[in-house]
Amino acid sequence: MKKKFFLAVDLGGTNLRVALIDARYKIIDRHLFPTGRFVTKESLLQAVVESVTALLDKRGLKQAQIEGVGIGVPGPVNFDSGRVYFFPNIPGWKNIPLRDILSRRLGLPVALDNDANVMALAEATLGAAKGYQGVLCVTLGTGVGGGLVIGGRLYRGASNAAGELGHVPINVDGPRCNCGGNACLEAYIGNLKILGDAKSAYGRDISLEELSRRAGQKEPKAVGIWRQVGKRLGVALTGAVNLLNLDAVVIGGGVANAGKVLFDAVKATIQK
Amino acid sequence: MKKKFFLAVDLGGTNLRVALIDARYKIIDRHLFPTGRFVTKESLLQAVVESVTALLDKRGLKQAQIEGVGIGVPGPVNFDSGRVYFFPNIPGWKNIPLRDILSRRLGLPVALDNDANVMALAEATLGAAKGYQGVLCVTLGTGVGGGLVIGGRLYRGASNAAGELGHVPINVDGPRCNCGGNACLEAYIGNLKILGDAKSAYGRDISLEELSRRAGQKEPKAVGIWRQVGKRLGVALTGAVNLLNLDAVVIGGGVANAGKVLFDAVKATIQK
Repeated sequence: MKKKFFLAVDLGGTNLRVALIDARYKIIDRHLFPTGRFVTKESLLQAVVESVTALLDKRGLKQAQIEGVGIGVPGPVNFDSGRVYFFPNIPGWKNIPLRDILSRRLGLPVALDNDANVMALAEATLGAAKGYQGVLCVTLGTGVGGGLVIGGRLYRGASNAAGELGHVPINVDGPRCNCGGNACLEAYIGNLKILGDAKSAYGRDISLEELSRRAGQKEPKAVGIWRQVGKRLGVALTGAVNLLNLDAVVIGGGVANAGKVLFDAVKATIQK
Repeated sequence: MKKKFFLAVDLGGTNLRVALIDARYKIIDRHLFPTGRFVTKESLLQAVVESVTALLDKRGLKQAQIEGVGIGVPGPVNFDSGRVYFFPNIPGWKNIPLRDILSRRLGLPVALDNDANVMALAEATLGAAKGYQGVLCVTLGTGVGGGLVIGGRLYRGASNAAGELGHVPINVDGPRCNCGGNACLEAYIGNLKILGDAKSAYGRDISLEELSRRAGQKEPKAVGIWRQVGKRLGVALTGAVNLLNLDAVVIGGGVANAGKVLFDAVKATIQK
């Protein structure tokens, strides 16, 4: 009997994760490496290839048993051509035909998409939003990304850039965003902005983990920062929910670890 | 030869319009009545039936030559059941199975939808946004409505309420909207708000027509009001364009007559 498997690669700004998955989408085995170890594009590519090979060897699997490889990447891509436009947080990647490069080196079919898109598809198909027709997934990190699943399919938009909640303005006037826009959500709740607010409040550098922990202990300054984040995120989500008449929103990414304080503020804002 | 025709009914808060349309979607003939004449639901229904009958008689057409009737109505509907939930600006309509009532009285198949939805579908199929894949149509009036066409089909959302740009918030804090929300676009640029701003600026009641005319003559107060409207509309549209990666936006409704001043401000805001 030749069981079929898939490989999933999550190329993140912080970690590279590779997982072996069975036909029922169960994770059988996985590897994790800090991305920072791979300073060049070539070394990162090599790491993907080697970890895939290592996983197959370890499990005694042959290439013929692998249906294909799915890879999610931290930046905009052209889904049709399989090219990475660029990675905002990993230097050296610009207009790279990553799908074809990996497919050739691995000898396997590869599907490439933006990480927020694949998260959205996974959550809407198997995860927290399973069974819902209109689903927006938001990823909170250095950037604020998103993916939109409508009727079970990713909605990519005119140029593969749909779901970008981070660049929805939440005020008529507001801070300038990296994208050149004004008052974009990301300019208010991107990780760097939260870290800056935390530094102002505490008079020293403070990590997101510590800020979340302090909020969990109901420390007013930390609670205030997360409530503010939640309110602003809630405003952008209210717009998305009203525009798209969505039936589910899924929030992920490091910042989402702030947990209850953050989610309560998001919910209160949307309900209003 | 039995040519085929359609009937189109636009039930507006101000006017009732009925048109006879050929198989190439060309308008052959039309009727217009002020809606205010029909104070009861029954008299409005009767007017639709009589004007349809009058159009057919005038053109010597038989029912068998009519493929069907499409009706756009100024309020939320359940597309599947053909029921009107209510009309914000016409009293006496609540949970009315309008599609079935008209179909029975006319002896013809009837399709019923919200007016912004049918406008969106028409613009994306035959009009200003023909050939575009992601289209948002906005109707500016007492309320600010909208319809969303994705890949040639209306996107209705979880409860037939997608496209509601009027209830996208454009500020974190702002005026209360009729919907119960805060800082909704409609609370800033609905007709009543514009008329109120105009009254404050001029110290007297001033119609939208006059305000548009004065802006056309480059009168600073009028230009200022429309620029403000355009900027706020532009903020909400920026969110929609970035979230949905749209390739076309169509703006209609009475307020859109303000023309160049308004559109320039909308474009400038989106471009930023």
